[in-house]
Amino acid sequence: MLDSNKDTIAAICTPLGKGGVGIVRISGENSLSISLKFFKSSKKNFAGIKPYRLHHGYFISHQGKILDEVLLAYMPKPGSYTGEDVVEINCHGGPAILQLILEELLASGARLAKPGEFTYRAFLNGKMDLTQAEAVIELINAPTKEAIPLAQQKLQGLLQQKIQTLKKDLETLRQEFCVAVDFPEEDLECLPPEKIQTKVQKTIEEINALLTAYEQKHLYQDGALVVIAGKVNAGKSSLLNALIGKERAIVTPIPGTTRDYLEEYINIQGIPVRLVDTAGLRETKDEVENIGLQKGLELILQSDLCLLLVDIREKFSTYEQNILEKIPHHKIFVVLNKIDLSSTMPKWTENINPKIPIFKISAQTGKGLKELSKAIGKQLLGTQKESSSALVPNLRQKKCLEKAVSELNLLLQHLFEMPYDLLSVHLDLACQHLKEITGEITSEEVLNQIFENFCIGK
Amino acid sequence: MLDSNKDTIAAICTPLGKGGVGIVRISGENSLSISLKFFKSSKKNFAGIKPYRLHHGYFISHQGKILDEVLLAYMPKPGSYTGEDVVEINCHGGPAILQLILEELLASGARLAKPGEFTYRAFLNGKMDLTQAEAVIELINAPTKEAIPLAQQKLQGLLQQKIQTLKKDLETLRQEFCVAVDFPEEDLECLPPEKIQTKVQKTIEEINALLTAYEQKHLYQDGALVVIAGKVNAGKSSLLNALIGKERAIVTPIPGTTRDYLEEYINIQGIPVRLVDTAGLRETKDEVENIGLQKGLELILQSDLCLLLVDIREKFSTYEQNILEKIPHHKIFVVLNKIDLSSTMPKWTENINPKIPIFKISAQTGKGLKELSKAIGKQLLGTQKESSSALVPNLRQKKCLEKAVSELNLLLQHLFEMPYDLLSVHLDLACQHLKEITGEITSEEVLNQIFENFCIGK
Repeated sequence: MLDSNKDTIAAICTPLGKGGVGIVRISGENSLSISLKFFKSSKKNFAGIKPYRLHHGYFISHQGKILDEVLLAYMPKPGSYTGEDVVEINCHGGPAILQLILEELLASGARLAKPGEFTYRAFLNGKMDLTQAEAVIELINAPTKEAIPLAQQKLQGLLQQKIQTLKKDLETLRQEFCVAVDFPEEDLECLPPEKIQTKVQKTIEEINALLTAYEQKHLYQDGALVVIAGKVNAGKSSLLNALIGKERAIVTPIPGTTRDYLEEYINIQGIPVRLVDTAGLRETKDEVENIGLQKGLELILQSDLCLLLVDIREKFSTYEQNILEKIPHHKIFVVLNKIDLSSTMPKWTENINPKIPIFKISAQTGKGLKELSKAIGKQLLGTQKESSSALVPNLRQKKCLEKAVSELNLLLQHLFEMPYDLLSVHLDLACQHLKEITGEITSEEVLNQIFENFCIGK
Repeated sequence: MLDSNKDTIAAICTPLGKGGVGIVRISGENSLSISLKFFKSSKKNFAGIKPYRLHHGYFISHQGKILDEVLLAYMPKPGSYTGEDVVEINCHGGPAILQLILEELLASGARLAKPGEFTYRAFLNGKMDLTQAEAVIELINAPTKEAIPLAQQKLQGLLQQKIQTLKKDLETLRQEFCVAVDFPEEDLECLPPEKIQTKVQKTIEEINALLTAYEQKHLYQDGALVVIAGKVNAGKSSLLNALIGKERAIVTPIPGTTRDYLEEYINIQGIPVRLVDTAGLRETKDEVENIGLQKGLELILQSDLCLLLVDIREKFSTYEQNILEKIPHHKIFVVLNKIDLSSTMPKWTENINPKIPIFKISAQTGKGLKELSKAIGKQLLGTQKESSSALVPNLRQKKCLEKAVSELNLLLQHLFEMPYDLLSVHLDLACQHLKEITGEITSEEVLNQIFENFCIGK
């Protein structure tokens, strides 16, 4: 991204789809001059664009045709989202009209913004740190209400502040190390290892509290994946539909996502659940189990819970064998379907791990569904607590925190046997991992990973 | 709708989905006072809300929590979209956060806007006539660039003006009738039937020009439906995918639409084509042809073109027989698939109507697809002309125009044999049908039909 940070960029910043209003956003040095090539005020005595005002008028194409009636707003630097000159053009919210307006801007000196590039510029220009930038996308992606405060706290800078405090504690400690390391002959007063131990342990505890919050709450922000596996006639689609019927569908997936599988999003007690039928949308008679299993297996392995669906009248096959061998027992339910057609418990169920729960349902009549649905919720909620306002890091932040803790543990481990100048390396590395969280230290690779997950227009 | 036009209404007016920015719109007497319950400016010396300005601040929930960072704009009546006091709250474009903000407003005195209710109020308050209101939804739904000028002309009021002119011509004529009708004894000068004939014929011609424009161009605004019919193993999904691969998918369907069929939207030379595989998303081995055919047949009958797909190695069956009997020959292509597996032309093809084109393809290898795709385009474009800037009415307007023409034709038919006072009834009815187009005369039923097609938030 770095070579093109001076470009004026433009993108549609409202969601794809049809709505009353859509917005095209332009950011950079030329955002106003480019926009003004196309804007014609509806006022007779138009006195020019004023900052932070909504100007009513028309977007006129380069061919002189009215493309749409618009509201134009200009937010000069640094008082804008990106910290650069920003223009927003509000028009009717149809995909074709938005695209047409965007194309005119792109043909006139603006470049199409990359995903997350507006927020990336806000980060570059010091409008926010990396935890806040990540909170933007977490807020937008928030699949349920429960996820919103988690993102909002980070957007307001609370995680950033917390990390800064931890970092400062370590830096202060590092300074006390330095005295001892830099002037060894002078026999200056050194912090005794016991005191260092206490201080480091306190920092470790605080980091661990963040890691615990992650374990307890991350499903609220990340969502859970529940996969329905089973042979072609087990009734996977019927089960999917039956479960959707029981819960309210809450989130429409982003338009344009590939539909390799038939999937729906449901809300189970605040946890957003992606429910997938591994059969695949386009499964036909020709490409039955083998391909389906291969494609689906990857997904099943990632899932938080696998529902292995079996027709109660069928024999146990290598298909089920395969799944049961590959998935840990605490992440799988065996679900016997079609109990309206037979009530005999199949013999083979006696041989499966007694820790795996077995449910008997009829997706057709709805029998047993309530219990299954409840058990899914209980299983997912088992680890999740809907408690206080603990700060919840995301996966990337969690990994940095783990690395920092691991350095601090190494320090503690050798505290009484190694010289301070060797120990200080661990302190430096711990600090570095904390700086990676806020973006004080960062690599292009990390930045790309973060901002590629953004939608275009943010 | 009529009993609640005084309510303050609110809705999310950006498209559903995830994006950088989302907008909640509030319209009505209390829009500002309700919004201000939740808005906290980020300025220290906040001097209150000024019209048409973007105010930066926070949306604070009734529990005192920051829900989001927002921009608030206030547009006082009558200088707003609806002609009422309007407030727009720009926040992050995530579905959950938008929903949460909306819920706070709804719990505080606003009512959820019905689909199209903002535009309905604009119509009620004289901000636009019915052709302009309909143009709003046509613009938002515009599936390709070609549809935009068609909608934009109507939004700018050109169709309204045209209809007003036609109506005035008829009303002037009606006045000349009146003189004759109201004062028969005075033997006033009457317009001779020949002159009336000329004038009425001119109006009919002008209306017919609009009707011709509809026939020539309506597919650009309404889109075409192309349905792939065929038995389970004919390769419908493969053909669908192959055709998508050849064309660029242009429009994502509105999120939340039911997915009874596997369908995609493609752009064939500017005409938006809804391409449907009648197999249905959730077809399984159990519910093969019979249900599929029943469900699909309705769709096939509505289609602008049906692609009847047959495995070249298979025999002609009652399935194909059925379809061929029911669909007019100018709306069907027979497509022989799997020519990579056999090249023998099946005997049965000799017996089908020679006017029905037969194509030989392999969806697998791609052979013959180019020709098929081209032929589909040619078939659909056959009636459509990408000419001048003719005004193109929509279906409702077209029906009103047809009724008006039919009244005028009745008038002409009896012009030389019936008295003017009886003839004037036809003139009145023709005028009435024109007034229905602009909404000067309208019924709640018509209004409901129009505005129910809007999305919520417009």
